[in-house]
Amino acid sequence: MSIKKEKIILGIDPGLHISGFGIARQVGSSIQLLDRGILKMNPKKGLPERITIFHDFFLEKIKTLPITCIALETPYLGKNTQSFLKLGYLRGCLYLLSHQNNLELLEYTPPEVKAAVTGFGGASKEQVATLIHRLFPPLKTQNPNDPYDLTDAIAVVLCGLWRSSSPFHSR
Amino acid sequence: MSIKKEKIILGIDPGLHISGFGIARQVGSSIQLLDRGILKMNPKKGLPERITIFHDFFLEKIKTLPITCIALETPYLGKNTQSFLKLGYLRGCLYLLSHQNNLELLEYTPPEVKAAVTGFGGASKEQVATLIHRLFPPLKTQNPNDPYDLTDAIAVVLCGLWRSSSPFHSR
Repeated sequence: MSIKKEKIILGIDPGLHISGFGIARQVGSSIQLLDRGILKMNPKKGLPERITIFHDFFLEKIKTLPITCIALETPYLGKNTQSFLKLGYLRGCLYLLSHQNNLELLEYTPPEVKAAVTGFGGASKEQVATLIHRLFPPLKTQNPNDPYDLTDAIAVVLCGLWRSSSPFHSR
Repeated sequence: MSIKKEKIILGIDPGLHISGFGIARQVGSSIQLLDRGILKMNPKKGLPERITIFHDFFLEKIKTLPITCIALETPYLGKNTQSFLKLGYLRGCLYLLSHQNNLELLEYTPPEVKAAVTGFGGASKEQVATLIHRLFPPLKTQNPNDPYDLTDAIAVVLCGLWRSSSPFHSR
């Protein structure tokens, strides 16, 4: 009999202005949210400073809670190449934190996340948010103006918890 | 009278397989190379591990030598979007290191670097290498097969030392 280590997942939707995050574990058939929130960074601050704030914020979470995995969504290149590159700066910090703290890194494509949460890979952000709010009703009342940063992050956490075989993208 | 702090620049040409770097300062009219070399990372290693190796390698340089600035070349999006994103992971670590260690971050476009070194913004990598080898003859004999990683990194260092007004790209 092998002992299966409990997964406690930190899911992050990173952004240079707003990042959403959730930390959860599976308890029986339900999900226990240990922490969740939004990290806002002043765009007037320099990029090196914002990257450091982002790094230190999640390092603090890792030091505080017994997180075992970091889960992320694969980014797609949009119209803005520079935004895409800068998103890479934040992701690089998370890769670094995962290795330095011996955490598994889980990465899923947007359709994988949507399919895991709603059953449909082409679901809209609103549909994902609706389902997340149904599972965690306090989130809706506490964050009425959530621009999906929080719900997107929690969707990544759920994807990590619910997928039996977690691909480890380390390439 | 203001006291001008001596600039000691760590210039890096980052790559997930091979990174070139140089560390130099201006002494009178000449450039003193304090350190330079290549960091090779095994592509078989996972991305989080390579990012950590890269981070720790340059952290060690920063702790060992009195570096005041990190200099980088702005990357251009080539054909491979994923390579571009992964380059962002390495650059993110350097932004983090610059802020954590109170170093100035200098960033230049490829034409700026080429123009500073050769006088011509459209110079080839080979022309840049020729000039670098002329300034530092030992580099040519010690690194006969240098695929420009080292000379490109030293060119960024020279650009940082020679440009009177150093733009600080922190946006």
